[in-house]
This record gives sequence, C-alpha cells and structure tokens, in this order.
Amino acid sequence: MPDSDGSRISYGDAGVDLRAAEDLTGRLKALVASTRTADADGEFGSFGGRFRLPAATELVASADGVGTKVLVAAMAGVHDTVGEDLVNHCVNDILAEGAEPLFFLDYYACGELEPDVAEAVVAGVARGCRINGCALIGGETAEMPGIYEPGHYDLAGFIVGRRAWEVPGKRGVTAGARLLGLPSSGLHTNGYSLARKVLFDRMGLAPDDPFPGELDARVADVLLKVHRSYLAPLRPALAAGAVRALAHITGGGIPGNLLRVLPEGLEAVVDTTAWTVPNEFRVLADGAGLEGRELYEAFNMGVGLIVVVAPDRLAEVKDTVAASGLATIDCGYVRTGGEGVQLDGV
Amino acid sequence: MPDSDGSRISYGDAGVDLRAAEDLTGRLKALVASTRTADADGEFGSFGGRFRLPAATELVASADGVGTKVLVAAMAGVHDTVGEDLVNHCVNDILAEGAEPLFFLDYYACGELEPDVAEAVVAGVARGCRINGCALIGGETAEMPGIYEPGHYDLAGFIVGRRAWEVPGKRGVTAGARLLGLPSSGLHTNGYSLARKVLFDRMGLAPDDPFPGELDARVADVLLKVHRSYLAPLRPALAAGAVRALAHITGGGIPGNLLRVLPEGLEAVVDTTAWTVPNEFRVLADGAGLEGRELYEAFNMGVGLIVVVAPDRLAEVKDTVAASGLATIDCGYVRTGGEGVQLDGV
Repeated sequence: MPDSDGSRISYGDAGVDLRAAEDLTGRLKALVASTRTADADGEFGSFGGRFRLPAATELVASADGVGTKVLVAAMAGVHDTVGEDLVNHCVNDILAEGAEPLFFLDYYACGELEPDVAEAVVAGVARGCRINGCALIGGETAEMPGIYEPGHYDLAGFIVGRRAWEVPGKRGVTAGARLLGLPSSGLHTNGYSLARKVLFDRMGLAPDDPFPGELDARVADVLLKVHRSYLAPLRPALAAGAVRALAHITGGGIPGNLLRVLPEGLEAVVDTTAWTVPNEFRVLADGAGLEGRELYEAFNMGVGLIVVVAPDRLAEVKDTVAASGLATIDCGYVRTGGEGVQLDGV
Repeated sequence: MPDSDGSRISYGDAGVDLRAAEDLTGRLKALVASTRTADADGEFGSFGGRFRLPAATELVASADGVGTKVLVAAMAGVHDTVGEDLVNHCVNDILAEGAEPLFFLDYYACGELEPDVAEAVVAGVARGCRINGCALIGGETAEMPGIYEPGHYDLAGFIVGRRAWEVPGKRGVTAGARLLGLPSSGLHTNGYSLARKVLFDRMGLAPDDPFPGELDARVADVLLKVHRSYLAPLRPALAAGAVRALAHITGGGIPGNLLRVLPEGLEAVVDTTAWTVPNEFRVLADGAGLEGRELYEAFNMGVGLIVVVAPDRLAEVKDTVAASGLATIDCGYVRTGGEGVQLDGV
C-alpha cells in the first residue's frame, strides 16, 4: 500500500545509516594499515587499492565466501573469526595453484550497519591477512536493507597471489602417486547449512550448549573453529618442488575436490580408515542419519587438504609438514584401471 | 523446537541443491570462455584463476557490489543487466586510479540456486567483461539458505587492473582546475534503498508500471538502466596524460566523491545549473520530499563521473570525449579560500 503522507524520506529513513558508515571508516583504516606489506602502495579511501609487482609474474586469483558459517557467527555473537576463515580459505585455494598470497579485498554486506560488528569481521580478515603475509588493499561495506535481515551479514573475499612454486596439478599426477591428508580444524567453511539443520533444528541445541561428546566446548566453539591455512606447513615442500597437486577439501568434500586434480584414466583410492574421524563429524553423521559417500561429500570429515606426492618425495613432504607441528595422514594412492575417487572403508 | 523423528537429512533437505550447482557449472564455463583474453591462462574449475602479467606492473584492485539494485532486478525478473552494472562500476573505480582492467572475479550468493537466474547474472558479468576487455578468471556461486530469501541474491565483484596512465589524483589537483561532468545513465548503482522506498512504498508503483513523466519506459526499465563504463570515452584523454583526477560519483554523490580527490586547502565549486537534472531524479526528489545538498548526496543527479582537468587541457578532453559520442558538462572549478565541495544553484 502506498505511503501517501507528504513527509520527507531521507536516506536514513530508507534504512541506510551514513553516519555509522563514516564512523566505521576510521576504524577500518587502522585495520587495513596493520596488513600493509612492502608492495602495497595505495592510500586508504582511494577508488582502488594499489599493489606494486616487482617483476613479470603470473597471478592467481580466487573469490570465495564462508557459506552459512556467517549465520552461526551471527547466532553466537562471535564476529571476529569468520574473516580469518575467509582469508585462509582463499589462501588454500590459490596454494593449490602454486601461488603465494599478495593481496586481499573483502566484501561485507549487511541489512543494518553495526560498526562494532563490521569492525570485528574486518579485524578477523586483517588478522588472517597478517598471518598469511597478505596486504588488505581494498574492500566494500554495503548496507542493504531488504536483502539482509537485521543482525545478518554476508562476507566474500578476493585474493590475488603470484605463482611462486611449480605445482603441476592434474597434468602432474600419475599412477602410483601417494595421497597425504592434512588434518582440518573442524568443518572449515563447508557443510554449514546441513550442520545447522542437524544441530539447531533437529537436535534442538543452542550455540551456548555443550557440544555432544566434548568436555569443554560449546556448540558455537566447535562450529566456529577457524579454517586452517596450509600455507606455512606446506611452504618448505612447495619450495622444494615436491608437490604434484593439492586438493583443498571444500564444497563436495574429498570425492568432489580430489577429482579436480585427477587426470582422465586414473583413479584415486582413499583409505578412510587411515584417520580417526573427529567427534563433531560423528555427531553430525548420527544426527543427520547420513553415512557412506554422501557424508564425505557433505563434510571434510577431518581432512582439510590432500597433497598428491610422487612416492620418492613422500618422506620429505611428511617430514617438512611434521616440522611445522601438523600431523600427516597416509590416506591413499592413485592407480590406473578405474575412474574417479573411490572411498575405501565407508 | 527440535525435529526428533529419525529420518535422514541430506544436503538437499538442508536447502542446498548440488545437482542445480553442477548443471550451472557447465553453462558458466561457456560464459567465462567468452571473456578470455591473451593473458588469462587458467583453466575453468581450477582452485584459482591464473593471469600472466608480462612485465613489472603496478596493479590496482577494487571490490564492489551493486547495492539493492539486485532487489529491483529480482522484483522485475530481469537478471542479465546487474552483472554489467557491477563490472562497469568496478572499471570506473580503478579508472580513477589510472588503471586499465585486466581481470575480474564475481561472487554470487543466493538462498536457493536457480541456474537460469545465476546464468543470466553471470551473462551480464561476462558481457561487461567483454566490453571492457577484461577476463573473467574466477568466481564463486554460493547457495545460502537462511541468509537470502528464495528469489533474492547478492552480487559482488572484484577487479584487478594495471596502472596504465598517469592520473595524479588529489596530489595533482590545483586551484584553477576545471571540473568536467560526464552524464550518468540513470542511478547507476547508488541510492536504490531510497529509490525503492519512494517509488514502491510511498508512490505505490510496481516494476511494470509506466515511470512517471516517461513516455515509453516502465519503472523497472528506468531503475535497471546499466551503469555506464567511462573507460572507452576517457581512454584517449587518459593516454594523452590530460587528466588530473577522476571522481566516480557513487555512494555519497557529487559532494562525497569529489571530496576524495580534493587536496586540503582547496574548494570545489559545482554549478548544478550547468546540466538538466534527468526526469527520474526529479521524480525521486519530489517523491521523497528531499531537496538541496541531501539530494545530491543520495543520487548522482545525472553526473556519473567528474574529470578534473587543467584549464589548458580542457578543450582537448572535451573533444576526445565528444568523439566517443558522450556529452560533457562544464560544471565547475577548484579554488582556494574554502574547503570541501560547494554546490551552487541548489
């Protein structure tokens, strides 16, 4: 029904708070400055972020979000971790193409701008950038009433890196190659729509409830564990040229992502008994009544990245990853005679 | 209330349709291929898009959205233009830093994946990329039930360009510089929350209704006019080094964006009588009961970009822009003796 009274409608009446946006800008400036690297030579507030590349380079870029992990963050009122999830997710994606992070931009969209929330989100982005040696050179904060409910927001990230290491990928994977799994830290950023439905709708849990089977962790703690960055653990193996391919285990799980680095005519065999599936995935499996392959397509099940290595470099890769403090899982191999990803033991 | 029956919940039950996502992937691959440029050397489906930079380069990057123009697109069922809005918005932003577009990535998030809608949106992105000579080398399609209502989506874009032209910006603007306005094509991507409130809530119009004062245009036609790219019209002037600074008129309007290229101690004087405010802005002003400066902060009012030029290069810039078929507006100058942006005639 038309609103026919003659009063004026300002931008604020339309649900856009320009004052809050101004206030936020000052705070974001400091966060952005905290991520500055030697080659990031732009100025905050310019129309585009600048980055100086010292030599001819092949760039690798990726765009991503954190899925409905943002809804868990909103439910729990914990806003300073999803930004780090986002950066680490993007870092791992370009790592799979042999790239070292250079710079990052974020897109934060909400229904009603709450500067404290937006600042906390960007603080997480900035922390992720600092840890991964990546400059946050730009971003957009959008207030979009009508798209996002009050209290809700979405978050997308864009990363650009330079190809620093030879990771041949699909073309470098041959029969006999070994699969080395690296542990995930929880669900990473994948499977949250299903996990929320199981835990909150079906099991009736709240974010502050103890997580079933955990001694000292709330539901929110388990669900908001930060997506692990594999940059530091893998840097030595990458620098040594010991990696044939990397599969970042995101949407589609192990079957969906390992397939992305498998050439035609070869089959990957994954031994799912090689690692203990962490408690949270068992709780989710039981709660959903899911099993077998479908479960491994919905969640990472404890493995966040799979390194494809030639047999003669396996020990070297395991040693260098172990030196970083991260466990490794001998979880399979590549062979002729089949197609696709076979999961043994499920 | 917990759902306590023992049936299984698949990913599809949780609102995520993996089949629709697969189907969409094939269609997006063709759209992405249509934007390929000589230096885009990645493969569709890899973890990160690759781009080869031939020489040492300074990059300029920007992230943006199209605001609640996406809601108008959803209301009108017209999905193939907002992607071009997005690309052109990003192109203009990095143009202001003297950069020529190299590559683009998009983030499309929705509540329920409708492949036809997602494809139409990306078709708009791809068209925008082709027109601006920019390769679409990556992107993310996210299905996020609980964040977006069915039928709603959000769209963010990320552009990287190389600094090809010397546009000194703030540091190159001196007293006596002239302001040359370039016409917008409608609202571009700014002021949509207010415009929707005025047209749909207060005036009770529907997307298919005739737009007040227009002979042959529906409300949706006027609101969805594509954000203009200024790359082609400005390329000759940029190549000639004739541009001191560019202000892309987005959120904050002429006052907010001209301020971004104004050094301290100088004032910009804009003569708003130098151009005829297009009909849609007059309708919006009347409908909102807004006038004066506030109106010029909410909408671009017919000027989408302001070029700051030294007086001795003014004729040259006007001629080269006019040769592209775009009008130019002598709309003011820069002077000492004040601060900020003064609007004459409002």
